[in-house]
Amino acid sequence: MALIVAKFGGTSLANPKRIKDVAGRLVAYHRQGNQVVAVVSAMGKSTDDLLKLARSLNEKPPARELDVLLSTGEQVSMSLLAMAIEARGVRAVSMTGRQAGIVTTQAFNRAQIAEIKADRLKRELKNNRIVIVAGFQGETKEGDITTLGRGGSDTSAVAIAAGIQADVCEIYTDVDGVYTADPRMVPRAKKLDQISFDEMLELAASGSGVLQMRSVEVARNYGVAIHCRSAFTKTPGTLVKEANTMEQAIISGIAYDTSEAKVTIRDVPDQVGIAASVFGAIAAKNINVDMIVQNISENGATDISFTCPVSELDRMRAVLDQQVRELGVREYLIDESIAKISLVGAGMKSHPGIAAKMFQVLAENNINIGMISTSAIRVSVVIEGAKTQLAMTQLHTAFGLDSDQVFTETQLTSEELAAKAEKGR
Amino acid sequence: MALIVAKFGGTSLANPKRIKDVAGRLVAYHRQGNQVVAVVSAMGKSTDDLLKLARSLNEKPPARELDVLLSTGEQVSMSLLAMAIEARGVRAVSMTGRQAGIVTTQAFNRAQIAEIKADRLKRELKNNRIVIVAGFQGETKEGDITTLGRGGSDTSAVAIAAGIQADVCEIYTDVDGVYTADPRMVPRAKKLDQISFDEMLELAASGSGVLQMRSVEVARNYGVAIHCRSAFTKTPGTLVKEANTMEQAIISGIAYDTSEAKVTIRDVPDQVGIAASVFGAIAAKNINVDMIVQNISENGATDISFTCPVSELDRMRAVLDQQVRELGVREYLIDESIAKISLVGAGMKSHPGIAAKMFQVLAENNINIGMISTSAIRVSVVIEGAKTQLAMTQLHTAFGLDSDQVFTETQLTSEELAAKAEKGR
Repeated sequence: MALIVAKFGGTSLANPKRIKDVAGRLVAYHRQGNQVVAVVSAMGKSTDDLLKLARSLNEKPPARELDVLLSTGEQVSMSLLAMAIEARGVRAVSMTGRQAGIVTTQAFNRAQIAEIKADRLKRELKNNRIVIVAGFQGETKEGDITTLGRGGSDTSAVAIAAGIQADVCEIYTDVDGVYTADPRMVPRAKKLDQISFDEMLELAASGSGVLQMRSVEVARNYGVAIHCRSAFTKTPGTLVKEANTMEQAIISGIAYDTSEAKVTIRDVPDQVGIAASVFGAIAAKNINVDMIVQNISENGATDISFTCPVSELDRMRAVLDQQVRELGVREYLIDESIAKISLVGAGMKSHPGIAAKMFQVLAENNINIGMISTSAIRVSVVIEGAKTQLAMTQLHTAFGLDSDQVFTETQLTSEELAAKAEKGR
Repeated sequence: MALIVAKFGGTSLANPKRIKDVAGRLVAYHRQGNQVVAVVSAMGKSTDDLLKLARSLNEKPPARELDVLLSTGEQVSMSLLAMAIEARGVRAVSMTGRQAGIVTTQAFNRAQIAEIKADRLKRELKNNRIVIVAGFQGETKEGDITTLGRGGSDTSAVAIAAGIQADVCEIYTDVDGVYTADPRMVPRAKKLDQISFDEMLELAASGSGVLQMRSVEVARNYGVAIHCRSAFTKTPGTLVKEANTMEQAIISGIAYDTSEAKVTIRDVPDQVGIAASVFGAIAAKNINVDMIVQNISENGATDISFTCPVSELDRMRAVLDQQVRELGVREYLIDESIAKISLVGAGMKSHPGIAAKMFQVLAENNINIGMISTSAIRVSVVIEGAKTQLAMTQLHTAFGLDSDQVFTETQLTSEELAAKAEKGR
């Protein structure tokens, strides 16, 4: 007898056959005496189809209307899943983001959940219904439909789990858990039985695509245990929960991220307030930057480097062109061919020398380090993108993470790397 | 300067090109200084596709979930139309049935509009927006999504026009107005410049597919003038409004309906309460019946005949099988090969002998009459279905309705007859 929130992504709901499989899983949970809430994404590629349709009518679709349009994707999959459940003789009720009480900010396309008003949802559970909630969407106080942007569906699921004090939030995906490294990149990667919120956050922030950072943040803030597992097997996946410091591995995983570019602003006058001006202007455009490094000042001028998503480069250039004019800066350089490699592990807090060992392994393999940043449980470096796999496999071995089994899937192609960079929602 | 509600059906919005055309029409209205509300159906055949998907998961999809699913069709077309309008530089805002304040009863799949709370809609008009409203849908007081069933989109449009005191409710369709008869059936049919609510109601009730009866009823009750016209031309169509008794044609039009069957219950005991029992049981199942005729009683038993939609025959048989057992009735007969031919005209009130002339024309053409029913402005007869076109063309000529021009479209095939019978929404 548990209260379970289970989230299913678009791949798990891509066609009627898969929807029936998901229905079977939920009905089994229900028959075991559990209370069940499913949170769903849109079917397969239906969101992409809607986007294409929108762009055929308006190259820059208005944000509000785009949310009205995209939110239909989840509304379709949730009602179909409810029908498939009822066909198996269990009562189900689907709920839009609004009906489920997901109140958001008014930032169309990238709204944030402000509140969960779960009264009706709880009532439906008490009435012995399986409740299906549309992920990725909510409603403003003013009654407008919003979508949550990247990682939205996972975030919906975790927020609902928090709102109804669920025992666990299962996130079903097309991989069977969190690995020490992407197994398509590192064939000897190992599946982790569990990992702490903090480590998972650092991995997600560092490019691991399994769970979106936003959802893990909410899970940590509200103490919601996430069980990340495959929609296509019964095998348990990885449990993400509060750290268990008694048996902490030094390193939990290694992540890579090829979706960022390195930006360097040259010969910035070494004056108070320059960095504030540059990063203030960038923040005003809502562009995320990472790994900010300022070099030692020479003859009154300095270089500032940072990374930002390649997808934001157009907007970044607009900001920088203006800053260059206003601040009397010489120029800025952009390098899109970089990779960020991150070592993550709560155990490194009590084991000095992790960073030094990492740099040494890279040096032995003739991999040059362009930038470095660290946190209490992470060391990240920027390297040449072409050396991503070499760095990953060498570090994985050096830090004792290799599995006895070799992952059998074909290795990652450049298209997959690109797709991974694009991956969202 | 007028306040215009314009409703567009699925054919008018079937693809991006047509959505752009509709946007162009609305923007032109707006630029002329009018306030504009558009009410839209789902794109083309998208509702059918959703229905197919639903049935692949559940042969009898639960009514509530079906409404959740189907309502996405209008949500897609309304947001796309808003995007197309904004691409032309005019601000637009789309609204779901709920957002437009369309409060309905809780009868899923066939809800009725209870109230229009148009505060936000009016506010958006004041803000100089073109407002796009999803037709066919609303929301219960409890917050559940409903659809309005057949004729729902037209009804949404007229109800909104009434709710905001619009000057006119334009209903754009794939024909260019109301004709004296279906031009595909009667090549010399004439387009009417105007027609009264009552006549339009009788025509709609008698099988004319141009406007749905529900919407005309609402229009009459609230005095909303309907302008029924083509989405593909600029030509004015037919104005449906309060009767203008000064220049009333005797006959406005002739309609036919091949979607009904004739049911005869044989040898009903001639006792008080039998008819009440039979029609009470039928009404309890929400099956519409029409043209009830009871023959003269012979030796204590009587025959009762009536018509009902062919699509309801399965449910009708279930009711009648039980009634036959309970009431000691001998048997019932069903004839699906009938047609109902109706003459409609407000002028017949003051011109006696219309019915007699109708029967004579049919007799001259050797067409047997199976049932008769009349109202103040209508005479309907049931004839053999195979003689539909003969009856229509002969009556059209006899009552002086023939146009000088011959309609050039190919005449109606049996498939089109069947399609017309199925036509709804």
